[in-house]
Amino acid sequence: MNDTGRFTMPGEAGYESLTLELARKWGADVIRDSDGTTLSDEILDAGYGIYSTVCLIRDHNEWAAAHPHALQQTFLMTQPVAASGDTLTIGLMKDFFAEQFRINGDGDAMPYWQVYDRTENRLLPAESWAYRPEEGAVEIRGAVPFHTYTVSFLAYRIWEEISMYNHTTNHWDKEHLMQIDPIHPETQSYLLAWMRSWCESHPATTVVRFTSLFYNFVWIWGADERCRNLFTDWASYDFTVSPRALRLFEERYGYALTAEDFINKGRLHVTHMPPTPQKKDWMAFVNDFVISFGRRLIDIVHEYGKKAYVFYDDSWVGVEPYNDRFREFGFDGLIKCVFSGYEARLCAGADVDTHELRLHPYLFPVGLGGAPTFMEGGDPTRDAQQYWISVRRALLRAPVDRIGLGGYVHLTQGFPDFVDCIARIADEFRAIRSYHEAGAPWRAKTRVAVLHCWGKLRSWTLSGHFHETFRNDLIHVNEALSGLPLDVSFLSFEDVKNGALKDVDVVINAGFAGSAWSGGDAWKDPAIVEELLRFVYEGGAFLGVNEPSAVEGFDSFFRMAPVLGVDEDEGDRQCHGKWSFETEPDGGLMPQGSFVHRNTLYRRGIPFLTDGQARVLASEEGVPTLTMHRFGRGTGLYFASFEKTNANTRLLLNLILAAGHEDLSACWLTDNAETECAYYPGSRRLIVVNNSDAPQKTTVRTPGGPIALELAPFETKDLSL
Amino acid sequence: MNDTGRFTMPGEAGYESLTLELARKWGADVIRDSDGTTLSDEILDAGYGIYSTVCLIRDHNEWAAAHPHALQQTFLMTQPVAASGDTLTIGLMKDFFAEQFRINGDGDAMPYWQVYDRTENRLLPAESWAYRPEEGAVEIRGAVPFHTYTVSFLAYRIWEEISMYNHTTNHWDKEHLMQIDPIHPETQSYLLAWMRSWCESHPATTVVRFTSLFYNFVWIWGADERCRNLFTDWASYDFTVSPRALRLFEERYGYALTAEDFINKGRLHVTHMPPTPQKKDWMAFVNDFVISFGRRLIDIVHEYGKKAYVFYDDSWVGVEPYNDRFREFGFDGLIKCVFSGYEARLCAGADVDTHELRLHPYLFPVGLGGAPTFMEGGDPTRDAQQYWISVRRALLRAPVDRIGLGGYVHLTQGFPDFVDCIARIADEFRAIRSYHEAGAPWRAKTRVAVLHCWGKLRSWTLSGHFHETFRNDLIHVNEALSGLPLDVSFLSFEDVKNGALKDVDVVINAGFAGSAWSGGDAWKDPAIVEELLRFVYEGGAFLGVNEPSAVEGFDSFFRMAPVLGVDEDEGDRQCHGKWSFETEPDGGLMPQGSFVHRNTLYRRGIPFLTDGQARVLASEEGVPTLTMHRFGRGTGLYFASFEKTNANTRLLLNLILAAGHEDLSACWLTDNAETECAYYPGSRRLIVVNNSDAPQKTTVRTPGGPIALELAPFETKDLSL
Repeated sequence: MNDTGRFTMPGEAGYESLTLELARKWGADVIRDSDGTTLSDEILDAGYGIYSTVCLIRDHNEWAAAHPHALQQTFLMTQPVAASGDTLTIGLMKDFFAEQFRINGDGDAMPYWQVYDRTENRLLPAESWAYRPEEGAVEIRGAVPFHTYTVSFLAYRIWEEISMYNHTTNHWDKEHLMQIDPIHPETQSYLLAWMRSWCESHPATTVVRFTSLFYNFVWIWGADERCRNLFTDWASYDFTVSPRALRLFEERYGYALTAEDFINKGRLHVTHMPPTPQKKDWMAFVNDFVISFGRRLIDIVHEYGKKAYVFYDDSWVGVEPYNDRFREFGFDGLIKCVFSGYEARLCAGADVDTHELRLHPYLFPVGLGGAPTFMEGGDPTRDAQQYWISVRRALLRAPVDRIGLGGYVHLTQGFPDFVDCIARIADEFRAIRSYHEAGAPWRAKTRVAVLHCWGKLRSWTLSGHFHETFRNDLIHVNEALSGLPLDVSFLSFEDVKNGALKDVDVVINAGFAGSAWSGGDAWKDPAIVEELLRFVYEGGAFLGVNEPSAVEGFDSFFRMAPVLGVDEDEGDRQCHGKWSFETEPDGGLMPQGSFVHRNTLYRRGIPFLTDGQARVLASEEGVPTLTMHRFGRGTGLYFASFEKTNANTRLLLNLILAAGHEDLSACWLTDNAETECAYYPGSRRLIVVNNSDAPQKTTVRTPGGPIALELAPFETKDLSL
Repeated sequence: MNDTGRFTMPGEAGYESLTLELARKWGADVIRDSDGTTLSDEILDAGYGIYSTVCLIRDHNEWAAAHPHALQQTFLMTQPVAASGDTLTIGLMKDFFAEQFRINGDGDAMPYWQVYDRTENRLLPAESWAYRPEEGAVEIRGAVPFHTYTVSFLAYRIWEEISMYNHTTNHWDKEHLMQIDPIHPETQSYLLAWMRSWCESHPATTVVRFTSLFYNFVWIWGADERCRNLFTDWASYDFTVSPRALRLFEERYGYALTAEDFINKGRLHVTHMPPTPQKKDWMAFVNDFVISFGRRLIDIVHEYGKKAYVFYDDSWVGVEPYNDRFREFGFDGLIKCVFSGYEARLCAGADVDTHELRLHPYLFPVGLGGAPTFMEGGDPTRDAQQYWISVRRALLRAPVDRIGLGGYVHLTQGFPDFVDCIARIADEFRAIRSYHEAGAPWRAKTRVAVLHCWGKLRSWTLSGHFHETFRNDLIHVNEALSGLPLDVSFLSFEDVKNGALKDVDVVINAGFAGSAWSGGDAWKDPAIVEELLRFVYEGGAFLGVNEPSAVEGFDSFFRMAPVLGVDEDEGDRQCHGKWSFETEPDGGLMPQGSFVHRNTLYRRGIPFLTDGQARVLASEEGVPTLTMHRFGRGTGLYFASFEKTNANTRLLLNLILAAGHEDLSACWLTDNAETECAYYPGSRRLIVVNNSDAPQKTTVRTPGGPIALELAPFETKDLSL
């Protein structure tokens, strides 16, 4: 059990003995550097594998300064301004953080600028406005008084965003790093040479840890501290744009994209909303480029006998480990930083040789949300345990190969509990990993598919971390699923039309109306509705959350209303009487403490029963919130919302198993929803975990009879049967 | 003060002395009959005016039975049924109350039937289905498995709905009354003769009280007691339909309406949603018919020296007192039953000689909601006081001419408090009425217009009583406005385009997105947006509630976002950072106990500040709920919701006056929001009312100095200045 390895720890020059002492305690086999730290020779020569962090597109300020045209760019749109007369001057940078952006008024950029009359959705002809570079403004002539106008323009990004964030958070006082765009041949030549030279000068490095490749997720900062964050979307592609890329796209796809294809009336294209065909084409174009040029850099790394891992975050845009092309990069490993179980599954499911998790907390004074961690007021042990119980349950179901930490090792001084906690976590991780080697753990027969617009491409994640996407019911569902003993896949509507339901027992569709997760206009297609009705009629199940299958224009707002027996009154049915019902909770399905609330953050109206036949398991303020409805031989399940808690996770599992016609008595399950278990038939090991911060008693039903256990807070019990 | 008159009381044969004793106590000058009571000669001869209730279209069962083709009708749509094979049989009456409807399979009706594939919104050709009269079913051949189908058919209505309701509520055991349709020439001949004969046989009647004319509001009952009320909408026109009317419409308007124009995918056309042009044409067509034939009946009444009043409820559809044609009927009076202040204003504002209110409670064992009134467990005095304080404040602003009661006088026995309470109310009413005669009460200079799709046609009311429409913010706003010292008008979007804003200072737009009250697609028109921006820029104010000016397809969801400084995130802006703000309550504007909640029943998402410039007066859970924003010389006011309470009513008034640039110190206002006052300069009377059920202290600011008062619960103080 107490073997070592599979652990990557951060080293720090100046703290050599601490680094090596912790490496021994944590059973590390690899030492890495981090943003802000370096490894000294004493560390490099200590016999560990060495990961070296490479952020390809920054750290080239001298070259960047000499090639300003090769800086990365983005489209920006000014906030709408109302005209009060017939001329209007709009200052372009008024809304934006001046340290992040510089207006691109170059000759090849100007044709992409657009000025819109937003009151009537009208693109202004180029001759009706002029850019005044000296004022950084656009002047509109012949404006219609009391119409509002916007300017969409190209801007260079002059401060690499992750560096900008770290710099600002830590009050650094060093040069702002710029980011260069490899779309340009001169950037490519430079980077290829730089990569080769880097490999030569880093003989101790065993793994080049790319963080990540070329293009960051979108992160637009505003001029005003009261609204510094104007836009963040982990899975959006707006930061990949440039006149050259737009020209290449046009050549390849035979049509041109405009600023408006990105700007989208100022909304940009949020990942939570269904993508346009143009956006999908652009993503494919960028992905293709990132693969083709990325491969050339990785080949160089391999030439030098090093491995190439990619960090699945920050500048990951265009990498897309879930579109069946990821192997083309030639990466040897994928590293994902994780707060949550679904992120562990996201890493585990990628097609690559080595899967590694970087655990939280990061060894930094403050966490991502700005709360204290390794400083006065922080409790890094509590944080580590909380994150670990989320990640652990996912690792019970799907193996990853390595874990690790990042940041400043010296910050652990004064937190001996934390050091011990990580040692325990590392041991637990290695044990769980070893049981997977003798074969997969038991899982129920019921196969679950999550259905949304992105399908497999956005398996497990929506767009970033849980705390960034918690407003969407689906991330709660995914997080619950990440540790359940179920086969889980992610399907697009196209997949459904291509027959994917033949390998599925329960389809989950969870989101607010119009979102990518609910499906939006995809539900207008009668073939989708027909196929899902048939699927349920013949014995399958459809589990809808919030506004599943919702779209305007039909007899029901939920297209799956015939299956669910539930629809939603958007206000146009307020004159329609509603079925009265009795709420009949089912203790066998609904663990103590489980709940389904009526309201969620985005929801138009009030759910109601369509035919009075649904069994109402829960309700709130007279509104059904959890229902079960027969359709043919199958089942429609409706959740008005879903919030991830341990009890609700078990509620979800129980309903899925019931809808899957599963024999619950044949399942390896605990009888206490605060605990879960995993049984590995190959190694005859039973792992029982306490997912709470309180002691728990639990009983696991096994073929050899029930096993009763008591678990300390957060505990992992490891039994040989 | 204790003069008499202006009071209509219900008489009841068998309770002659009680009737006459109460008539004296209440100062009645008129006695009326009610549904279920008659007046004996002793009452008729007692020297009072006599109202006789005439419900024209029922009470003709013999004639109706002989002319079944002349029964009134409606379109009905079966609930959607999914096909599982290629034939599908749909029972037409499965969903509907068999005592209310009878399928109309007549030769002239069948061409109007429609069968729809609702999965793909496809009308089936007539040859693909057949009506099976013996089974009361439609058989569909060539159905697509797992598509859903509906049948829209014509049905005769065989039980007049108000009678059906009273019958069921009171467990009557008498013949079901049917309703005949005057669209047929034979019905017209019959009714004209009957009217004449009625007048001859009722010499004591001074006023014929029509309740109301021909067509009831829509009230569709279902087959199952768990969902007895399928649909009720006080202002919908579905019960006016018949093959003959549809033919006449087609001749007049040059195009044909279909079942689907009424059925609207099963939603019917709820008054709370914007009307289609077809619906508006149909309403105009029906109104025209109701005026033309109604006038002939009223002329007969006048021939006999009687007056004709119309009860503004029940069968009022097609009467429309607010479309500038009401005078064409020749009615002498309008009677409105009222629970609320806005209903008193609805009556007061109609263009007719005599305006009368029928107060609540009705002298019935139970109230409209089914709660006890004049029986064990009821408290009719409390009910009367609660309704009166709502109505009284409206009567302070606009005079009506008479009040009265209805129902069974004998039920007042055992409720002496109630008898005294009505006597006080009658005296207060007469006093208030008398002060109006010497001139209008003081009101502020600020002129308010409520803007929605219906405009003046739906002044004050939405569609029925408050408890039927409470889910809409606007009814709360209208109820608050009904007793405020403001000039209030109701405008349509067409009015705005035609320059109506020149007579307005504050425009109110209140409702959920897509509703008739918010405006829906009307906001797509740039001319509306432009005109309102100009209006505010030049000094006006726009006060939006919930999702004002909301429509999809533009840069902002609220088209008035430039004015409000607030927009709503429907989920597509969840990746956009939001302005942080300080909440700064203003005690001068916000009375103690006033509030604006974040959530309301229909709302898509989360309000946010667009430019950070709005002053946030209230917030909830980090979301701005009450804001004030400058635009040019004018003001945008945003309420995330509005709930009518005394404190919130004053909050609304204060913000309206502030936005109207009004000098608050020059206003006749109390300093306690539980109280209000009205000053009548012509008679130099000051009325101060306590709108609460607790004692209140209040001070009224007057040019002659403050006047401090103490008021008992519900009290009216009447001061001569």
